[in-house]
Amino acid sequence: MRESLSTPASASNAFTLAGWTQTIKRSALQELLVIASRPEILSFALGLPAAELFPVRQFMEATEQALFADTRALQYGPPFPMLKQHIVELMKQRGVACRKEQIFLTAGAQQGLNLLTHLLLEPRGQVISEEMIYPGFKQVVDLFQPEILTVGTDLRDGIDVMAVESLLRGGARPAFIYAISDGHNPLGVSISQVKRERLVELANSFSVPIIEEDPYGFLSYDSNIPPMRALDERWVFYVGSFSKILAPALRLGWLILPEELISKLSVVKEASDIDTQTFAQRVVSSFFDMGCLPQHLAALRDEYRVRRDTMLAAVERHFPPGTICTKPPSGVFLWVELPADICAEELLRIAIETEQVAFLPGNAFCLTRQPQASHSIRLNFSNCRPELIEEGIRRLTRAMELLRVQALCVAG
Amino acid sequence: MRESLSTPASASNAFTLAGWTQTIKRSALQELLVIASRPEILSFALGLPAAELFPVRQFMEATEQALFADTRALQYGPPFPMLKQHIVELMKQRGVACRKEQIFLTAGAQQGLNLLTHLLLEPRGQVISEEMIYPGFKQVVDLFQPEILTVGTDLRDGIDVMAVESLLRGGARPAFIYAISDGHNPLGVSISQVKRERLVELANSFSVPIIEEDPYGFLSYDSNIPPMRALDERWVFYVGSFSKILAPALRLGWLILPEELISKLSVVKEASDIDTQTFAQRVVSSFFDMGCLPQHLAALRDEYRVRRDTMLAAVERHFPPGTICTKPPSGVFLWVELPADICAEELLRIAIETEQVAFLPGNAFCLTRQPQASHSIRLNFSNCRPELIEEGIRRLTRAMELLRVQALCVAG
Repeated sequence: MRESLSTPASASNAFTLAGWTQTIKRSALQELLVIASRPEILSFALGLPAAELFPVRQFMEATEQALFADTRALQYGPPFPMLKQHIVELMKQRGVACRKEQIFLTAGAQQGLNLLTHLLLEPRGQVISEEMIYPGFKQVVDLFQPEILTVGTDLRDGIDVMAVESLLRGGARPAFIYAISDGHNPLGVSISQVKRERLVELANSFSVPIIEEDPYGFLSYDSNIPPMRALDERWVFYVGSFSKILAPALRLGWLILPEELISKLSVVKEASDIDTQTFAQRVVSSFFDMGCLPQHLAALRDEYRVRRDTMLAAVERHFPPGTICTKPPSGVFLWVELPADICAEELLRIAIETEQVAFLPGNAFCLTRQPQASHSIRLNFSNCRPELIEEGIRRLTRAMELLRVQALCVAG
Repeated sequence: MRESLSTPASASNAFTLAGWTQTIKRSALQELLVIASRPEILSFALGLPAAELFPVRQFMEATEQALFADTRALQYGPPFPMLKQHIVELMKQRGVACRKEQIFLTAGAQQGLNLLTHLLLEPRGQVISEEMIYPGFKQVVDLFQPEILTVGTDLRDGIDVMAVESLLRGGARPAFIYAISDGHNPLGVSISQVKRERLVELANSFSVPIIEEDPYGFLSYDSNIPPMRALDERWVFYVGSFSKILAPALRLGWLILPEELISKLSVVKEASDIDTQTFAQRVVSSFFDMGCLPQHLAALRDEYRVRRDTMLAAVERHFPPGTICTKPPSGVFLWVELPADICAEELLRIAIETEQVAFLPGNAFCLTRQPQASHSIRLNFSNCRPELIEEGIRRLTRAMELLRVQALCVAG
């Protein structure tokens, strides 16, 4: 056993990674999480909830209850039935009827999407998504090197359902259709009732599930249309999350699925991380027990509505003529199309360097390069106090002016 | 938009799942988690830590510190540097020198293994594992429909390193070699120093990484050999966990990797669940700050050593002649080979029904069917108080007697 080895010809000092990893790019969002967390930066970049609104004392009380009520709070354990029951009740507020047996607890919406993708998508299979979409969607499906069939989005009423229909009629057989019903990330739009109904009909007729991601549906400021899951319990797979309505650091979310899929999915989940934090499950369940969520949600809606309106007003007041901005009925993002001469990526560089304000440029959300996106930006309004929102929009306006002056200098 | 759809010929009411899901079987462990959690069952089945030893009050104090020190405790956030530094210090106790930049935080060891597999394994690629192994390993790799090349395990000194060598010399090019250095699950064995050195030499010579899973290395009752990571910082990827040494409900673990892999892996992680519970990271870091871990670890080792020795003595006293059982130097499992006429799966049925005691049968751990495993069982000793261990072993003995009587009746 102790003789020394002769090195085989093939040996090298380099690691051999799986082929799909060549597509890996570190996401712009993760990079910005680092920059935007520098204290001097005023950040509209990420979809962070307002830290000063976290219900810290009630959360502490809920922790105490969960921890001392039962030593199983720190043990391995099956999904906590009480929390599932609370989620069933919560979903009624959104017009969704479901049963405990259809609830699947996850470590947040991203994991929900990831597990469903593992269950549904073949390597090199097809999926349907909007062209402009949350980058975490692409990160999840990239592993499968899929063919992503894209459709447009109307800023007034959401995903282009007719385009989805022609893809399906044209022979596309996607593993699923990915959609964000309310407060779309990054576009802010909510899908109209008419389009929801039509999309669900299509899913049904073509036997293609919709993965309905809904992290923002409980943050609705004007009206409240029920999610697509309210229309169909078989072909709509609902993805919910406590990240925006309670605290992202808990990594806790849920799926609502046809019951027959729960058992297979629980094997995918077990392979992924054994089980979802029992501790967080019980703390959040105690938080529900204490009756704290309705009041907290109402407070979030009130405050975020003020922040949204403050940002909208400031953009209208300060941004240059030619700016287009629509009012998001839900969620935490404003989508702003700037005049075509303003390159959003250039603007970001200047905004950070000279004005210490951050946002995300439109191209961060395109599945393929879109001319319009290159002069569009996504602004988060949930994470800044109203007075800072006004200040940040002024700074951004100054950065745009500086960008135009520099362009003139170069041209001159 | 509102005309009704004609159903295409291909539509059906059945879901189309990804092909690999046909291999999905609900794991015996998950099923048993449900049965074994029934209060009347005395369970040696699962690798649960002792709930009564969870440091609940100190944990509560750590929670309070984390929560009130910084509102970012509930926010999205990058991996917490303080916790990484604590892990660097912790690893010194195991003879491992590493840097903060080589630490990658995960939602537990299972996620660590899962992320590494996504990074390293091609669809239908090769991996090397022992024949008898933790079933969570197979669950992780199954998604890739791999060719699993298996080697044996010597109950005295661990994985058959010469068999690994002949596989590699014979042309195998696995994505990685999977190994559990200390307190092997299910076999209880720790790999000898000589074999650790040889395996690391092989990994180096053939440029094949070892994934060294080490959930039990800190629970070492007799000696303490450093893990393989202490021998090589390039080709050994270390997987650590707080589940057995603090609390499984936190879902918190770590990897120690070559720094150049961290950035790619963080994209896989982000796609998986955005980030690891910031809250748990900060609570555990506070727990370290308070200096509570060394004392807690010492208490665990003392109590588990007593439980191990109690179980070993009871097995020797009560089990039938022909029983083979080796003393595990680390971990939470005893591996017991029963006389060949005792079918472990039959025994489990009788043990639960008539004696209300549970364990896992050997076949639950075989990658392919092994004659020896069918009359072997895995017994957990960490989760029961010593007096219950003695009682449980008596019950198991009675169940074996009953099984033999039944066999005689059938034969007669």
